[in-house]
Amino acid sequence: MQLQQRSCTGRTAVRNVPHRAIKLAPRPVRTSATSGADLTANYIIGPVSFVSDGDRVALNSMRFASVDSAGASRASLELQSGGKAGGISVLEASMDQLNMSLPPWAIRAGARKDIYFDPTQVTAAIVTCGGLCPGLNDVVQGLVNKLTDYGVPEGKILGIKYGFRGFYDSNVKPVVLTKRVVDGIQLQGGTILGTSRGGANIREIVKRIDMWGIDMLFVVGGNGGNAGANAINAMCRQHDVPCTVVGVPKSIDNDILLIDKCFGFDTAVEESQRALMAAKVEASSARKGIGLVKLMGRQSGFIAMQASMASGVVDACLIPEVPFKLAGEVGLLRYLETVIKAKGHCVVCVAEGAGQDLLEDGGLHGTDASGNPILKDIGAFLKDKFKAYFKDADIKYIDPSYMIRSVSTTTNDRIYCKILAHNAVHAAFAGLTGITVGLVNTHYVYLPIPVIIQAPRKVDPRGKAWNRLRAAIGQPSFQ
Amino acid sequence: MQLQQRSCTGRTAVRNVPHRAIKLAPRPVRTSATSGADLTANYIIGPVSFVSDGDRVALNSMRFASVDSAGASRASLELQSGGKAGGISVLEASMDQLNMSLPPWAIRAGARKDIYFDPTQVTAAIVTCGGLCPGLNDVVQGLVNKLTDYGVPEGKILGIKYGFRGFYDSNVKPVVLTKRVVDGIQLQGGTILGTSRGGANIREIVKRIDMWGIDMLFVVGGNGGNAGANAINAMCRQHDVPCTVVGVPKSIDNDILLIDKCFGFDTAVEESQRALMAAKVEASSARKGIGLVKLMGRQSGFIAMQASMASGVVDACLIPEVPFKLAGEVGLLRYLETVIKAKGHCVVCVAEGAGQDLLEDGGLHGTDASGNPILKDIGAFLKDKFKAYFKDADIKYIDPSYMIRSVSTTTNDRIYCKILAHNAVHAAFAGLTGITVGLVNTHYVYLPIPVIIQAPRKVDPRGKAWNRLRAAIGQPSFQ
Amino acid sequence: MQLQQRSCTGRTAVRNVPHRAIKLAPRPVRTSATSGADLTANYIIGPVSFVSDGDRVALNSMRFASVDSAGASRASLELQSGGKAGGISVLEASMDQLNMSLPPWAIRAGARKDIYFDPTQVTAAIVTCGGLCPGLNDVVQGLVNKLTDYGVPEGKILGIKYGFRGFYDSNVKPVVLTKRVVDGIQLQGGTILGTSRGGANIREIVKRIDMWGIDMLFVVGGNGGNAGANAINAMCRQHDVPCTVVGVPKSIDNDILLIDKCFGFDTAVEESQRALMAAKVEASSARKGIGLVKLMGRQSGFIAMQASMASGVVDACLIPEVPFKLAGEVGLLRYLETVIKAKGHCVVCVAEGAGQDLLEDGGLHGTDASGNPILKDIGAFLKDKFKAYFKDADIKYIDPSYMIRSVSTTTNDRIYCKILAHNAVHAAFAGLTGITVGLVNTHYVYLPIPVIIQAPRKVDPRGKAWNRLRAAIGQPSFQ
Amino acid sequence: MQLQQRSCTGRTAVRNVPHRAIKLAPRPVRTSATSGADLTANYIIGPVSFVSDGDRVALNSMRFASVDSAGASRASLELQSGGKAGGISVLEASMDQLNMSLPPWAIRAGARKDIYFDPTQVTAAIVTCGGLCPGLNDVVQGLVNKLTDYGVPEGKILGIKYGFRGFYDSNVKPVVLTKRVVDGIQLQGGTILGTSRGGANIREIVKRIDMWGIDMLFVVGGNGGNAGANAINAMCRQHDVPCTVVGVPKSIDNDILLIDKCFGFDTAVEESQRALMAAKVEASSARKGIGLVKLMGRQSGFIAMQASMASGVVDACLIPEVPFKLAGEVGLLRYLETVIKAKGHCVVCVAEGAGQDLLEDGGLHGTDASGNPILKDIGAFLKDKFKAYFKDADIKYIDPSYMIRSVSTTTNDRIYCKILAHNAVHAAFAGLTGITVGLVNTHYVYLPIPVIIQAPRKVDPRGKAWNRLRAAIGQPSFQ
Repeated sequence: MQLQQRSCTGRTAVRNVPHRAIKLAPRPVRTSATSGADLTANYIIGPVSFVSDGDRVALNSMRFASVDSAGASRASLELQSGGKAGGISVLEASMDQLNMSLPPWAIRAGARKDIYFDPTQVTAAIVTCGGLCPGLNDVVQGLVNKLTDYGVPEGKILGIKYGFRGFYDSNVKPVVLTKRVVDGIQLQGGTILGTSRGGANIREIVKRIDMWGIDMLFVVGGNGGNAGANAINAMCRQHDVPCTVVGVPKSIDNDILLIDKCFGFDTAVEESQRALMAAKVEASSARKGIGLVKLMGRQSGFIAMQASMASGVVDACLIPEVPFKLAGEVGLLRYLETVIKAKGHCVVCVAEGAGQDLLEDGGLHGTDASGNPILKDIGAFLKDKFKAYFKDADIKYIDPSYMIRSVSTTTNDRIYCKILAHNAVHAAFAGLTGITVGLVNTHYVYLPIPVIIQAPRKVDPRGKAWNRLRAAIGQPSFQ
Repeated sequence: MQLQQRSCTGRTAVRNVPHRAIKLAPRPVRTSATSGADLTANYIIGPVSFVSDGDRVALNSMRFASVDSAGASRASLELQSGGKAGGISVLEASMDQLNMSLPPWAIRAGARKDIYFDPTQVTAAIVTCGGLCPGLNDVVQGLVNKLTDYGVPEGKILGIKYGFRGFYDSNVKPVVLTKRVVDGIQLQGGTILGTSRGGANIREIVKRIDMWGIDMLFVVGGNGGNAGANAINAMCRQHDVPCTVVGVPKSIDNDILLIDKCFGFDTAVEESQRALMAAKVEASSARKGIGLVKLMGRQSGFIAMQASMASGVVDACLIPEVPFKLAGEVGLLRYLETVIKAKGHCVVCVAEGAGQDLLEDGGLHGTDASGNPILKDIGAFLKDKFKAYFKDADIKYIDPSYMIRSVSTTTNDRIYCKILAHNAVHAAFAGLTGITVGLVNTHYVYLPIPVIIQAPRKVDPRGKAWNRLRAAIGQPSFQ
Repeated sequence: MQLQQRSCTGRTAVRNVPHRAIKLAPRPVRTSATSGADLTANYIIGPVSFVSDGDRVALNSMRFASVDSAGASRASLELQSGGKAGGISVLEASMDQLNMSLPPWAIRAGARKDIYFDPTQVTAAIVTCGGLCPGLNDVVQGLVNKLTDYGVPEGKILGIKYGFRGFYDSNVKPVVLTKRVVDGIQLQGGTILGTSRGGANIREIVKRIDMWGIDMLFVVGGNGGNAGANAINAMCRQHDVPCTVVGVPKSIDNDILLIDKCFGFDTAVEESQRALMAAKVEASSARKGIGLVKLMGRQSGFIAMQASMASGVVDACLIPEVPFKLAGEVGLLRYLETVIKAKGHCVVCVAEGAGQDLLEDGGLHGTDASGNPILKDIGAFLKDKFKAYFKDADIKYIDPSYMIRSVSTTTNDRIYCKILAHNAVHAAFAGLTGITVGLVNTHYVYLPIPVIIQAPRKVDPRGKAWNRLRAAIGQPSFQ
Repeated sequence: MQLQQRSCTGRTAVRNVPHRAIKLAPRPVRTSATSGADLTANYIIGPVSFVSDGDRVALNSMRFASVDSAGASRASLELQSGGKAGGISVLEASMDQLNMSLPPWAIRAGARKDIYFDPTQVTAAIVTCGGLCPGLNDVVQGLVNKLTDYGVPEGKILGIKYGFRGFYDSNVKPVVLTKRVVDGIQLQGGTILGTSRGGANIREIVKRIDMWGIDMLFVVGGNGGNAGANAINAMCRQHDVPCTVVGVPKSIDNDILLIDKCFGFDTAVEESQRALMAAKVEASSARKGIGLVKLMGRQSGFIAMQASMASGVVDACLIPEVPFKLAGEVGLLRYLETVIKAKGHCVVCVAEGAGQDLLEDGGLHGTDASGNPILKDIGAFLKDKFKAYFKDADIKYIDPSYMIRSVSTTTNDRIYCKILAHNAVHAAFAGLTGITVGLVNTHYVYLPIPVIIQAPRKVDPRGKAWNRLRAAIGQPSFQ
């Protein structure tokens, strides 16, 4: 018997969302609003709203009239034009490279009327993967609070320390997470579960999931973490280990496909203003001052682009998606010379993954233990090049990454993290597995993990956001 | 001859977007990226992206499977179910009251390849209406910068002071706005154009527009300001005054229909955290402490709801959309008593428009000069009621409104304001009039002003956002 | 036998500092630097520096050459001129009123080589009195950490809740304070020991001190709290209850005699900038805007004065020490009219205790339970008067007190609180009682409690600080 | 005839303060409070307070009873014990090295009743020397405002750009500073006058002072800047160039002798908390995390010491004044190993000038163009050593200097800067030259420039401040 049978009224849709197949019967949810039961014995908890299993959110809400429209592309137009009578509907051009047909709809996230676990019998585990990102503690707190609200007993929520490795590294033991333990952690930066590097031994993890009787695993991670979650889910299904695996996508670089933005990204853009303003103050106070700021962004330049847009002080913004030349008539150096001549100083913002092809031995050098590309230091490289070209310039180079990723969240991200976490718990109780939560067109959705990890999301060099920035700061092409 | 003829492939759509009807021929845009022409003589300004006139953004990206789904409503389901074969597609439930069929698509905002004004001949005017809202200076700066980038000559951009009245009040003269004048104003709060109260003499305004030869009028305002813009546009059309009128919706309360959110709203939620945290600290440090914070929200409780959600310290959140009782078994007072008994203290967040029916003489008393409802002070009222009910409690009442609305923007809002402003200028140069800019499903759009001013946007008491908050803080119904 | 005999090489000096008279012999201190003994077994803890019992700090480091010098006064000149051959040395003029001869020297604070308690046998208690002030948690943390570093065992440090009342109120029990309990509390505002109002039953307190075997009592409080500490000390001495009583002066108003400044004051001035800047933004954005901010300062206007000086936006600053007229040629209203005429708007900063004589029924109305004068609301009063006088003005009144006193400390105050707390513990272990810690001429000292509580410290209307502000903002006399 | 003859009632005192010797007669001051004369025609400007020429402030307010007291030293005790009958009075031990007898008193700063310039005839110049320091713009603004308040005409205040070089570098022209130009600059970081490096051609400067008719030169600078000011003053006196030279000591490192603290120092300590907290968050989130933060402090470790004390997160603080070993039983590495074993992570704060003797080729390498010692990068060095010693540690190195020195001031520093600036102007109008302003024992004073530039102020390794920090964080000796 299947836990649930979702028929999709849409065409192809999300029918490949993996479902759990264990023998629990549906039961009415103890709504989370009753969590304060002791406080509210006399109060009627009003009609709580549930989400219907069939509710859907359109992945694409944009219709291009022409292939020349900003962000449109011929490939995608052709790909999809058959589907709609005379209609023209494409996704972001950056997705062309995917070579896959994306589903038009995603499952709407939220609490279901029927749940497929007895909360009092649930053991849950939470793991965070990779480096720091603002909001990790918010998400962990949200997961613990919502699981507890559902009725998961104290002592039954485990925090796996230092990434997937914490499942099987004999020097690391899981910690018990309770509402008390996570109280106030959202006001700190960092993660109480610890950062991690490197890959995961899926077999060992599934062994522990089985041995420890874990019913729900929540994986907060980036591309690597979600790939791990996907593999764990696959092996659990293969071996009939009855554990639900739900992802919460984490990428400070904001490079996760399809979703509006990643948690922590807004906070990172906000915090990076300090570095850009410092660079502006240093540069404009000096004679022939050059302020150079390296921001995060290994494959995608979203932080550098948005931080530059917000600051109003950046003269040139360099991102991985847009190659640039240093030398020559149209090169960066010559341009900065013109800016300095006009204004007396300039500010450059560079994403860490930009210009890798310029570095002596050709840039990318495989990937590190976590599967991220190994980068050369473009910041130090540019600083040296600037020094060589502008003999009498006063160059100030700022690398604020650790100071950005360790801060606590802005309210925007705080709310976002909470809702992601809550929806992850709703998904697990609804028996969904192999999915990840996200925000699409301002609505919270569930997406199959494979859909979002097939490629990193990138800034579209022909799209509006990048061209808006170029228009705003008057940046020419450096090619 | 019509300036432009936009045929809508969609059904009813936006065909009632008012168009300008003056005799200028289309001309190729001088792209804004060329603004730094002096700096970039040697540089190839890359292929700049334009938006096709036919590009559209779906207003609704959500499909409900059931009338019982959170946020769905029978009325709207019935209203629209006929339109789509078997499909179920409704807007937010709050829109039921509108008694109007909304268009399914909005025009995508952005720079057009052809413009309908010679920038060197343009005179533009900017007016801000109503009270303070974070981002006003950002928007003004964005308008001035983008107009100048298009090529509007220095001296030809007028700032109308103190609202519409600044057009005809003999004591107030317009100021000339240049890039230099608006440089850095985004780092200040407030508005360099001044706040205003009260209505507008449309006839006098149109007279000045005509006399002063204004080609483009940008109106940054709320419901009242947009209504004024709409009336000005109508009278200009009626009397063949060749002025384009473009609105930028401003509402710190976030109560504008259809658009994802209003500028300044994020900043307000962020800044209101200080007051909520202060209330928490005061309440929890006192014996039987009650912290009471009144936040903005005349008809809509978005700020109170989101600020409460983010803070994690609020025990009861009261908004205009959800009535509550003070006394009785299910009343607020009794509930707070239970909370204080359990935790030793409590924190209440109330929107200024909440509970107006509880106030002695029945709440609403018509509207003020700006058309806003006149409110009784629910904060002082609750403070008194708390004092009477909790004899030995230590009550701290905080009203931080002026300290919230006067701050400068967060980066999120800073970017948002810029892009709204830029798109407003693009609209005017595209010959669009009687429209307003906005963000819909994360895309920038143009909407006819009448569409957004027909009613205020409200928190849906049956929707997910409100129920999420209630679940998160365990708030029962007080009715 | 006396515990210690301090002979003062100075003239009159501090010989009236009360000493403890119990039978403990001196013992060498376990220096606090050994606290990390477990971590540092292999390390030589370098030569730790102690303070000699005879070290002194001059209370006055200023020598006036003339009675006409800013801040000098004839009375004090005459009073003290006999003491020094031809010398002229006075304290701040505000102290004239004291009718007491102040000692020229204070005992230098710090760790002594010999201590008079066996730390392993000590039970200590901490109480905070009165309302919130930034830094309370810092001080509590500092006391607990330093006591523990001395070797006071876990479980032997009690926190008395909700002020002195916590000693004998049957509904309130002391809490045990440990390093773990106080970890991180400095990052929060408020006080984990709770605020209090009203007086104290000294007899009941001393009874509990005796019963509970408390050896050291640390009282963090203002005038009232220190007076209580003084009375407790007197009764302990009278009844041979062997408890050391040490005060830490707390006054957000900064109105404690002799000491350079009170903890929390800097933070309050810093935080009040938000309100003043908001008032400026509101006032300058409005047509004929008046921004009115009420800041703390019941008897002394230090916060209003310093906050106005720092802000650079205040046009008139009103403090309790300087009377002012509203009406008439030289009155405040007429002056503001002139300012508005010149600048279009104005900002007024008023201390809560200012202008009490103007209020209808004559101002001061005795004192409240804590011994503080009961004040009428000068903020609301001025707002009404402004409304009546400036018919068409746009008045924005901000009362940010709760938002100021609840914040966490600036680093300046953070360090100050720590050192005050450490020195309070050093004093107790040195057997000093009836004294309070403070900063005098940038040095930490111990002062007899009676010396500092004889009168509130006030802004000297003839002194340099007040005249500096008047000069900086061009404020005339309003009398 | 001498401009003024100040007889010192004190013993040796300040008689070597250079005086101006030009032929202007004293005239009554136009008090600055009358500056708003247009606004205040009807108001009686109350009795403005002046400072008597004979007012003095004691440089030392501490009396040590024993050479063993923290901060005392035998040398200084012997040096000075003869001067006072039985008295024991020494300065900070760090001054032993000075080999000079310091005056016991300083001249009190402030407005004098008589001034020696006709303000309407004055031309003034302002120069800032060296790198950025928070508060530079505050000081410049304060100077311009106070000069204008005295009556110096618009157009007569020159800002010299990019340091002393701006006097004679043909590519750099002075700018005219007015109240309007400096309005709001205190809210920005940096300096509108530009930073500088390198020495000065005194002869060229004095030539320009003479040619341009500059009556008052204000030099805001560190040791180098003040030395330059001193030389300029000497040459002006030598050649009868009638220009008053007044210094405002600037050192973000806080290494100026005698004065309580330098402007910008508080701000730097406050801002450095971000880096230390980031290091803590990164270190404690990682497995075996080491957070390493390099702060400013070339010869003096005040910033590192105070920032560590405030943060509460630093495990080891390394400053130039206290040598340390890396290896061996008592070395830093071994200690950190113990800390990591106990806590799982550690945080190290190092001043840039610390441990220079450890660097491969022996540390100091002469001085740079500004006369500052050239330092090796101790941060990168330690990072490498940590990597080599702790194989599996996760090391995060943060160098936030540019982000610290570019911020705007805290209110404390804001007020301090204003008062320093005002007193500098008072000094110039009082005919004082060759002096610098400062804060001594909480009072503002004038000191002869040579007195403060003879040596840098340093942290006393035997003093209380350093030992307090060691006690607070349990840091052993690493030697």
